[in-house]
Amino acid sequence: MKNINLAVSVLPEKQVLYAKYLTVRGYSEELCRPLEIEDYVVQPMADVSPPKWHLGHTTWFFETFILIPHLPNYQVFDDEYNFVFNSYYETIGSRVIRTDRGNLSRPSVADIYNYRRYVDKHMIEFLDAEFLTQNLVDIFVLGLNHEQQHQELLLTDIKYILGHNPLFPPYSKEIKSAEYANHDREYVRFKAGIYEIGFEGQGFCFDNEQGRHKVYLDDFEIENTLVTNKQYLDFIQAGGYSDFQFWHAEGWDWVKKHQAQAPLYWHLIDGKWMIYTLNGLMDIYLEAAVCHINFYEAAAYASWRGMRLPTEAEWEVSADHISWGERWEWTNSAYLPYPRFKKEAGAVGEYNGKFMINQMVLRGASIATPKGHSRKTYRNFFQTAHQWQFTGIRLAR
Amino acid sequence: MKNINLAVSVLPEKQVLYAKYLTVRGYSEELCRPLEIEDYVVQPMADVSPPKWHLGHTTWFFETFILIPHLPNYQVFDDEYNFVFNSYYETIGSRVIRTDRGNLSRPSVADIYNYRRYVDKHMIEFLDAEFLTQNLVDIFVLGLNHEQQHQELLLTDIKYILGHNPLFPPYSKEIKSAEYANHDREYVRFKAGIYEIGFEGQGFCFDNEQGRHKVYLDDFEIENTLVTNKQYLDFIQAGGYSDFQFWHAEGWDWVKKHQAQAPLYWHLIDGKWMIYTLNGLMDIYLEAAVCHINFYEAAAYASWRGMRLPTEAEWEVSADHISWGERWEWTNSAYLPYPRFKKEAGAVGEYNGKFMINQMVLRGASIATPKGHSRKTYRNFFQTAHQWQFTGIRLAR
Amino acid sequence: MKNINLAVSVLPEKQVLYAKYLTVRGYSEELCRPLEIEDYVVQPMADVSPPKWHLGHTTWFFETFILIPHLPNYQVFDDEYNFVFNSYYETIGSRVIRTDRGNLSRPSVADIYNYRRYVDKHMIEFLDAEFLTQNLVDIFVLGLNHEQQHQELLLTDIKYILGHNPLFPPYSKEIKSAEYANHDREYVRFKAGIYEIGFEGQGFCFDNEQGRHKVYLDDFEIENTLVTNKQYLDFIQAGGYSDFQFWHAEGWDWVKKHQAQAPLYWHLIDGKWMIYTLNGLMDIYLEAAVCHINFYEAAAYASWRGMRLPTEAEWEVSADHISWGERWEWTNSAYLPYPRFKKEAGAVGEYNGKFMINQMVLRGASIATPKGHSRKTYRNFFQTAHQWQFTGIRLAR
Amino acid sequence: MKNINLAVSVLPEKQVLYAKYLTVRGYSEELCRPLEIEDYVVQPMADVSPPKWHLGHTTWFFETFILIPHLPNYQVFDDEYNFVFNSYYETIGSRVIRTDRGNLSRPSVADIYNYRRYVDKHMIEFLDAEFLTQNLVDIFVLGLNHEQQHQELLLTDIKYILGHNPLFPPYSKEIKSAEYANHDREYVRFKAGIYEIGFEGQGFCFDNEQGRHKVYLDDFEIENTLVTNKQYLDFIQAGGYSDFQFWHAEGWDWVKKHQAQAPLYWHLIDGKWMIYTLNGLMDIYLEAAVCHINFYEAAAYASWRGMRLPTEAEWEVSADHISWGERWEWTNSAYLPYPRFKKEAGAVGEYNGKFMINQMVLRGASIATPKGHSRKTYRNFFQTAHQWQFTGIRLAR
Repeated sequence: MKNINLAVSVLPEKQVLYAKYLTVRGYSEELCRPLEIEDYVVQPMADVSPPKWHLGHTTWFFETFILIPHLPNYQVFDDEYNFVFNSYYETIGSRVIRTDRGNLSRPSVADIYNYRRYVDKHMIEFLDAEFLTQNLVDIFVLGLNHEQQHQELLLTDIKYILGHNPLFPPYSKEIKSAEYANHDREYVRFKAGIYEIGFEGQGFCFDNEQGRHKVYLDDFEIENTLVTNKQYLDFIQAGGYSDFQFWHAEGWDWVKKHQAQAPLYWHLIDGKWMIYTLNGLMDIYLEAAVCHINFYEAAAYASWRGMRLPTEAEWEVSADHISWGERWEWTNSAYLPYPRFKKEAGAVGEYNGKFMINQMVLRGASIATPKGHSRKTYRNFFQTAHQWQFTGIRLAR
Repeated sequence: MKNINLAVSVLPEKQVLYAKYLTVRGYSEELCRPLEIEDYVVQPMADVSPPKWHLGHTTWFFETFILIPHLPNYQVFDDEYNFVFNSYYETIGSRVIRTDRGNLSRPSVADIYNYRRYVDKHMIEFLDAEFLTQNLVDIFVLGLNHEQQHQELLLTDIKYILGHNPLFPPYSKEIKSAEYANHDREYVRFKAGIYEIGFEGQGFCFDNEQGRHKVYLDDFEIENTLVTNKQYLDFIQAGGYSDFQFWHAEGWDWVKKHQAQAPLYWHLIDGKWMIYTLNGLMDIYLEAAVCHINFYEAAAYASWRGMRLPTEAEWEVSADHISWGERWEWTNSAYLPYPRFKKEAGAVGEYNGKFMINQMVLRGASIATPKGHSRKTYRNFFQTAHQWQFTGIRLAR
Repeated sequence: MKNINLAVSVLPEKQVLYAKYLTVRGYSEELCRPLEIEDYVVQPMADVSPPKWHLGHTTWFFETFILIPHLPNYQVFDDEYNFVFNSYYETIGSRVIRTDRGNLSRPSVADIYNYRRYVDKHMIEFLDAEFLTQNLVDIFVLGLNHEQQHQELLLTDIKYILGHNPLFPPYSKEIKSAEYANHDREYVRFKAGIYEIGFEGQGFCFDNEQGRHKVYLDDFEIENTLVTNKQYLDFIQAGGYSDFQFWHAEGWDWVKKHQAQAPLYWHLIDGKWMIYTLNGLMDIYLEAAVCHINFYEAAAYASWRGMRLPTEAEWEVSADHISWGERWEWTNSAYLPYPRFKKEAGAVGEYNGKFMINQMVLRGASIATPKGHSRKTYRNFFQTAHQWQFTGIRLAR
Repeated sequence: MKNINLAVSVLPEKQVLYAKYLTVRGYSEELCRPLEIEDYVVQPMADVSPPKWHLGHTTWFFETFILIPHLPNYQVFDDEYNFVFNSYYETIGSRVIRTDRGNLSRPSVADIYNYRRYVDKHMIEFLDAEFLTQNLVDIFVLGLNHEQQHQELLLTDIKYILGHNPLFPPYSKEIKSAEYANHDREYVRFKAGIYEIGFEGQGFCFDNEQGRHKVYLDDFEIENTLVTNKQYLDFIQAGGYSDFQFWHAEGWDWVKKHQAQAPLYWHLIDGKWMIYTLNGLMDIYLEAAVCHINFYEAAAYASWRGMRLPTEAEWEVSADHISWGERWEWTNSAYLPYPRFKKEAGAVGEYNGKFMINQMVLRGASIATPKGHSRKTYRNFFQTAHQWQFTGIRLAR
């Protein structure tokens, strides 16, 4: 979880909060509608959480940070749930027994939906009763943004679960997952000078975006559109995965250890590349933006092209002049604090900066991001070996 | 799976086979009745299989070795299932994609019950049609014994799944899991001389029991009853888990690595030992036979008592004079072939001897063993670190 | 190894090169004088190389990049040495057999000194013969800087080898390893604005320093002196290693995994902190700058103090106003390319940017750095868990 | 270490003990004569000990069990050595600091030879002074046998150290390592019945050989000579390493994990099999007995031939009728206690049975066994994956 700007939000009308709450909470369940009960339970790798855990954890957030401390006479749904659905908030509760999320058959999916009903009912009661102070609005809005982040992870993790099943079940036949990147390809040019980046203005943002500040940039050019499957396939076919000179040392170790030869979900079947998508296994769509590549692959591709990835400052400065939103875009910026970054106090703010090491910034948004959740100052971040996000490549020079 | 004595069975009446088939198949499903769908899916450690896998794998056996080769015009239920439900039969099918059983949310539980229905229907058709030859009867009987072995594993694995959930859900409130071992404790004495062990006579046996043969035994004494929780607790309280001198070197490494201090499912809660049973978490029942100990623990306990575990020959020779059936009893015999042991040809017999290294023999049966499945010549075997079976200790000297 | 600025050096007089060569080569051997032969061989962890490997590898550099391609009729000393002393230059030779450096008893130490004599003799012949072109001077100077880098590693690795021996043998009784940091502690203040960083001018630099460029900095203050053992001991005694809130998530995982409670080489003996130094095990010297801490520890200490580590740009801008040279100083800057960074072609330049991911920049120099080897634009870098370097902490805000 | 029969030895003349002591102690040093100092230090895998450790550990045995407790006024050579040279005797001293033997450059080789001189001098003083009681003679003789066991390990480990160096240095050009197995190949036949095995009579034996006892054997036949390189090459060329059906399940896992395709020290160079021997790398000698195979390979070879390995009882019964002594011969018997096996008290006898699990018995002796050290009742044992011993194959049926 990333954290909130507690200073800038304003007290909205009760009805707006109410509608927003229902919409966000409903969308999490909507995303799970195509699932079998069995799909809610499994965890094929450590970074993936079982869908039922996402549903419980986002609910636990509202119960823990709003209902328990602020709703009079609230009865906890189940004392054990704090242990099960806490993630990394080390100040809340003990974490003695070691069990992996993917081994927990109970609470059942039905129990968790009951938990959601129970908390929703009390949240509505809470909103109705006008207990909201400015500070609680901030936490409430943070809870909604937190749930939206988990909505993206939910879809990402569902894809991983189904895409690693040898039966390759589709998530849904109805959604359109092949995205088009058919803009005319051109460079956008920027002159050297002082620019400003970081969040400013009204509305919600996470604390890592705050502290609008000046940066000095050299001249640079950035592509207006993303690298396509076709372009990436050229890299594969030119032997990109077997020539160390394009790779970081760590990246090359990753290639050798995993015998990597393509993005995640690409399968070479009878000599032909197929891709597992949310619609099932299908022919590769060449004009779509390449997806599910890690930082090493993004950087190696750029190196092979004689170009580079943009920095996050370059990206943000050019955001209004390029087309973005289909893929989270790897930048060549490490995830580090902005000047004047400050930790918030207490459990909500506990971990403001705790992930600011050995991760790289992703900018933009992806087709899995809930509508309205991202913005041009949004700083997403992942470790460099991860492929399971909807990640892509934009080039600069 | 262990394999069959193809030579000694006789052609039973069709009705007997028919009834036996329904009984065995029904009992597997009966065992799963208390489960939630989520419980069928998870795999908390590599040695445990998800219950739905047991249900599918035992069905796959009949489809693969009887229906496909011997029922005219049989249509395979699903081509992919051979990959999913094959276990270690390396001659059947390819095993290219590596996925763990515990990561497979599909086929769903409903799909697997449909699979069972489909195969049952065709098996009944097959039995009705009198296609049985002597050789097919043998495979059919093997399939039933194979399913019974998996019934024991099913219950063992369910206990592990529920017993490693922090909510400690009971499997069933109705069953009685605390067993009594309240015989008068005494030694049975045997004189040195030549004895015979191994299966002989009519009826089914696995091939590892075959080859009845002479062994020479020295004088020995064996206890008529098993070590109890109370006796084992004395060992714990005397510091048995912190004094290396009672342990094998490998066993002591195991103790240190896992910081072991009690059998599996024992929990020291507020200074008091509790045990997770199939009825849930409860007070320790002191008179019950100790359960869920591995070979290292059994041998260390015996050493602390100044005694030893019996050999499998000693056990078999004394089987008619002692009380057995509550716990699989660790012997101090390695699982090795009897004289004149021969591999069978083909996939069924593929692995006759493949497990005959670095495992120890267990004799008897446990409360989880299906009625009628074991016998005094039965050779069970496990690796020495395993605790999750219903294992116990009998002493000899 | 880091790489060279091929453009800026000028052709020095032959005598200067000659003297420089002898000095640098001699100093490597001087550093090894206190060693027993056995000390040259071992490798107690993967990041440490056996001293004899450093002696061979630095020699291999001159043989491979100068003598073989440029000295007429040069006979390679031993064909196998390319395999043994190559480090990570993947374009030179095959690397089929996997053996760890610490397992190689041969070539013997005597063989390696013979190798050094042989290469030195031919290098002198080469320098005498005036074969030097500007390009070769650059490689030659790079070879000397490369050897100096290994001199620092040599001392660092020797300390690790002797400091992990239960006999705690001193490296040398003659050297003074307790360093003083007894400046008056004060903050140096800088105003926001555009500054320039990066190498410029004559003389040698590595390529990662090149590309002098503008950066915009906010107001900042930086301490003129380093954090002392006494100050760090306060952090330890205040429970710094047992409170997660000061640590990055990765750092806290490191603490728990290693049960870390102090810098490397600190030993709590009979309730008193002792430190292994190059003079042997001794009482802690409280006024010395704390040493052998990793990035996680440096950042946690700063967090506990309510301050932060400087960025590398802040450090470089203030370098002329602070006292530095005793410890490599962790910055909060990731090791990433400067604007307009370009890979060099060929094996020497093969890996210019290959380490520019998941490492943090260290600035300054340490008491183990050869005199004249560092400068204020020098960019050292290590992974965040490493403690075995002579690393320290400077605070900013 | 294995342990001693304390009951059967008789008090020899002082001169005999004296001569025996010098011979055994001298031979350890003789074995090390061809080594460089660097060869004494390294440990390329956990099962291999550095030669200097063997020299120190065997000396530590005499110091710890004879000089310290029984020589008046004896001054320990170095207090730290108990920590460094103790192996697994958990009752003697603490073992707090974890360092691997292969990381210890000190004590130096010279220190260890001084340690040997010092202990030898005091042992001679001890023998001269006629302090020997029957019990001390037993420990003294055990110490000599213990050192002989380490002499075999010393040679085995030296071969591993040099044989894993890419320079393939020979141990000694003078020794003859290609052994002949040119007996006429024939089966020796034995009738079913009661036989006796185990040590009896005068002289030294280890405790695991004691307890001469009856065993019942079925009819069996055993080859009088060992499987040759030529025969084993047939197995390789017939695809033995790529057909799972010949292997135990564990063995097949080992093959796949290590991509095994030949015995240890075999190298396929330019399409031709070469073997590293104590004389260096050379052409395979086809008539020599195959060497350096693990239990899995021995069992797979036997299975491919449609035969089996003998049990240890069969081997001992036929020992006078077959040619043995070139290779330690894998049997299909697990290393388990004989009837009436009893642990000795105290540190010497501490671990009598501690290795009696998950190891297989080897019978005979090898070209690396010191003359006079083995006998037909000798029970050697190793874990099933080990190849680095001088192990071979004899077939039975």
